[in-house]
Amino acid sequence: MNTTLQDALRREPALEGLEPFEDYAHHTPHLRDPQHKLTRKIVASLQDAVRRVGLTDGMTISFHHAFREGDKTINNVVQVLADMGLRNLTLASSSLLSCNAPLIEHIRNGVISRIYTSGMRGKLAEAISNGLMEHPVHIHSHGGRVHLIKSGELKIDVAFLGVSACDEFGNANGVSGKSRCGALGYAKVDAQFARRVVLLTEEFVDFPNTPASISQDQVDCIVKVEQVGDPSKISVGAARVTSNPRELLIARWAADVMEHSGYFRDGFSLQTGSGASSTAATRFLEPRMRKAGIKAAFALGGITGGIVDLHRKGLITKLVDTQSFDADAAESLRTSPEHIEVSTNEYANPSSKGTFCDRVDLVILSALEIDLDFNVNVITGSDGVMRGASGGHSDVAAAANLAIVVAPLIRSRIPTIVRRVTTVVTPGECIGVLVTDHGIAVNPNRPELAERLRAAGLPVMTIEELHARSVALTGEPQAIEFLDKIVGVVRFRDGSVIDLVRQVKP
Amino acid sequence: MNTTLQDALRREPALEGLEPFEDYAHHTPHLRDPQHKLTRKIVASLQDAVRRVGLTDGMTISFHHAFREGDKTINNVVQVLADMGLRNLTLASSSLLSCNAPLIEHIRNGVISRIYTSGMRGKLAEAISNGLMEHPVHIHSHGGRVHLIKSGELKIDVAFLGVSACDEFGNANGVSGKSRCGALGYAKVDAQFARRVVLLTEEFVDFPNTPASISQDQVDCIVKVEQVGDPSKISVGAARVTSNPRELLIARWAADVMEHSGYFRDGFSLQTGSGASSTAATRFLEPRMRKAGIKAAFALGGITGGIVDLHRKGLITKLVDTQSFDADAAESLRTSPEHIEVSTNEYANPSSKGTFCDRVDLVILSALEIDLDFNVNVITGSDGVMRGASGGHSDVAAAANLAIVVAPLIRSRIPTIVRRVTTVVTPGECIGVLVTDHGIAVNPNRPELAERLRAAGLPVMTIEELHARSVALTGEPQAIEFLDKIVGVVRFRDGSVIDLVRQVKP
Repeated sequence: MNTTLQDALRREPALEGLEPFEDYAHHTPHLRDPQHKLTRKIVASLQDAVRRVGLTDGMTISFHHAFREGDKTINNVVQVLADMGLRNLTLASSSLLSCNAPLIEHIRNGVISRIYTSGMRGKLAEAISNGLMEHPVHIHSHGGRVHLIKSGELKIDVAFLGVSACDEFGNANGVSGKSRCGALGYAKVDAQFARRVVLLTEEFVDFPNTPASISQDQVDCIVKVEQVGDPSKISVGAARVTSNPRELLIARWAADVMEHSGYFRDGFSLQTGSGASSTAATRFLEPRMRKAGIKAAFALGGITGGIVDLHRKGLITKLVDTQSFDADAAESLRTSPEHIEVSTNEYANPSSKGTFCDRVDLVILSALEIDLDFNVNVITGSDGVMRGASGGHSDVAAAANLAIVVAPLIRSRIPTIVRRVTTVVTPGECIGVLVTDHGIAVNPNRPELAERLRAAGLPVMTIEELHARSVALTGEPQAIEFLDKIVGVVRFRDGSVIDLVRQVKP
Repeated sequence: MNTTLQDALRREPALEGLEPFEDYAHHTPHLRDPQHKLTRKIVASLQDAVRRVGLTDGMTISFHHAFREGDKTINNVVQVLADMGLRNLTLASSSLLSCNAPLIEHIRNGVISRIYTSGMRGKLAEAISNGLMEHPVHIHSHGGRVHLIKSGELKIDVAFLGVSACDEFGNANGVSGKSRCGALGYAKVDAQFARRVVLLTEEFVDFPNTPASISQDQVDCIVKVEQVGDPSKISVGAARVTSNPRELLIARWAADVMEHSGYFRDGFSLQTGSGASSTAATRFLEPRMRKAGIKAAFALGGITGGIVDLHRKGLITKLVDTQSFDADAAESLRTSPEHIEVSTNEYANPSSKGTFCDRVDLVILSALEIDLDFNVNVITGSDGVMRGASGGHSDVAAAANLAIVVAPLIRSRIPTIVRRVTTVVTPGECIGVLVTDHGIAVNPNRPELAERLRAAGLPVMTIEELHARSVALTGEPQAIEFLDKIVGVVRFRDGSVIDLVRQVKP
């Protein structure tokens, strides 16, 4: 460091505020130790990771839910945080499932005081619907979650991201190692936006691990754990494969609707949700596409084995994947260069500069309830208890050219079509068609579509007619009784509040 | 919008500040028009793009220099901005080259008033060295540029990024279309951090264009232009291939140094800079690696055809590429799944969470001057005029296990080894070895290395001995005379000022 330089830095207005050079490692002390610089991110335990990243009471922690019912990360990490005495945390998992029932205890004990999630199921959802939490849970869509993060409402302090394998610097993906979950679309967002990122990995692989869905420049520290998730349970629950004849009938009609929608042309694009009829509709597409001699440019998802099958057969050119719904999808992501992984910001965030869902022609979605205005409920059951997920439902419904809802008219004596949904997740204006096992209803805002489907010989009825048939079969459902307490705030993808969920009356 | 919900939003403290849902497209009006939502980013002209992104006087604009001497974007965009009457802009190109001489006029006319760049050459560099600008140019390393961006000193308002091809939403890479520059390591950073991103593309390809080095969620608007760059000129200048026997001798000795460095073992990693001897050293590695029966885990770069050749032969497992130095490198990036593209944040930013350069064992670098303390100058010539680039020099020298500088003892009667370099870019403490055509000098801070090289029979001398030989051949060079005015501020990779460049005396 020469004195002329120091003098100049003091004297010259143009150089004001600039710091003089000290030595090559002044700001990178790890470079002084050739061994430490390679392994400096690896910590011995989750406790060490928590201390390293400076997690303290009141902070926000996040997780991805790519392992769905097979997740082994969320509960374990929260247990460790509880044991370390942390309190008053905000839990921002991209979603929660039945496997997360152990969180009930940590909510009771004050470890977790607020939750942001796409959905919840099972005992946890029941407990929260029954007033477990002081603060209401915020239910967001997959795209809407990124919007909440980017707009600053949801500030993630520490993301705990479970991966099957990574290298010493934290380059990770969901297609190497043993417990392959496939696409890491949710985790990519947290890796980008969280202040600190802790990777939990089942194994270390050679540097550099490629492709890097999560990159080394996003990872603060890495801890090796026994298990991050059981990929065999990814397709349990919502993403199951159906052999139910009613669901198959609905799936076939859904494929017919696609075929005659006006969007079924060479280079079209599609998404099928995670519901049973929705994923099944995929298999009925093949003969229709072959007959028409067309290929889809891309399928977006939530990718299932059925979609992968069409891709392998050359009927869908590219797969754009934010979450792999089964092992076939994960394997295809690993092996097909035309199967690409995208973040949920690229997938569906309405305030991102460009989302794939904007370019979807046809999407098949499910519903717990749909009402006479075509509003859809995918979060609360007919008893008012939460048991579902917002997911990408409103994202793709709002953005796609045609959203097709598939649902049986009646499930276990419970009608799907109601006068007014218990909870609005997706506004009716976004839904083009409802396909049930008793007939097809077209939103009156799409008269041209009703015309096309009628011309194709499909059983088009009004939604009021379908509703009347349902009432004739099951009677009018009894109104649910709620208490005043708000247990859930349903956020539309743009962050606005589209509905509230109140505590069910015991 | 039901009134109960509106009431609750007004009344409940837990919902304070939340906005009620309006309609599905309230914040995404483009969704109301199925055609517009697809093409909304495309503008008819650069002028339209400038208006769309709101570029005004005093803002900061950025460019990438992946086309090097073949760039057709920087000059053209600045000309358009000048014609539109914009003034007082800060130009933050990742680097500038001889082809950028037309910028002189725009600096004179006040269109550009400040510059951040890795380097400059030719007439532009001469003019700036002779006092063209009121404010000194900031010279940064490739990694240091990202540090300046992330630390907030360099706030890019609009990035103008030239790409060979992209789709309607702006998914782009450097390996599709006609004018393929290869890796877009610089552009990736600008796409991520610039407030607004304008893509200039030579052609549109089908959606979705994959892989997306620049993603649709980073791009604001797209304009089609005649030409963004001439890839045949990427390897002109610094990245040329040599047949000069002196350079080849140096290259061979450099390969010998690598072989006997102690780091030449299975799974080692390497980088070769863009200088002639440096790139040539690559070809001498092959027989040494075969003899030793080893493979490199990865090569980092600045990837050249020579490195690609070793990759194709199975001697280098993975290529990690932030800038492709020739058509072979670009083609390999396109075709080899083990040739991966990384941003300059992943490559070399010292404040990123993990850089590839930290994991390099051996790097070969060039020098315009090196002094008795092994300080290296790669920016000013012996006449004090700027004619080079900081590049990744200090980044990799600081981070790698061994930095080998290669340079002829004398170039056109000008000595390379001097008592004190005209300008320090890379501090001597980072340099392990100097290889010249007259012998090899080892930094006294690496005595074990000198021992190994001597044991291998290499012509190891002290740097003072090499300097003495040079003085005997050319005499002591005359001191350069400078004026007081500071024309360049050399920033070390961590943002500190390591040296100043003053106006040369005419």
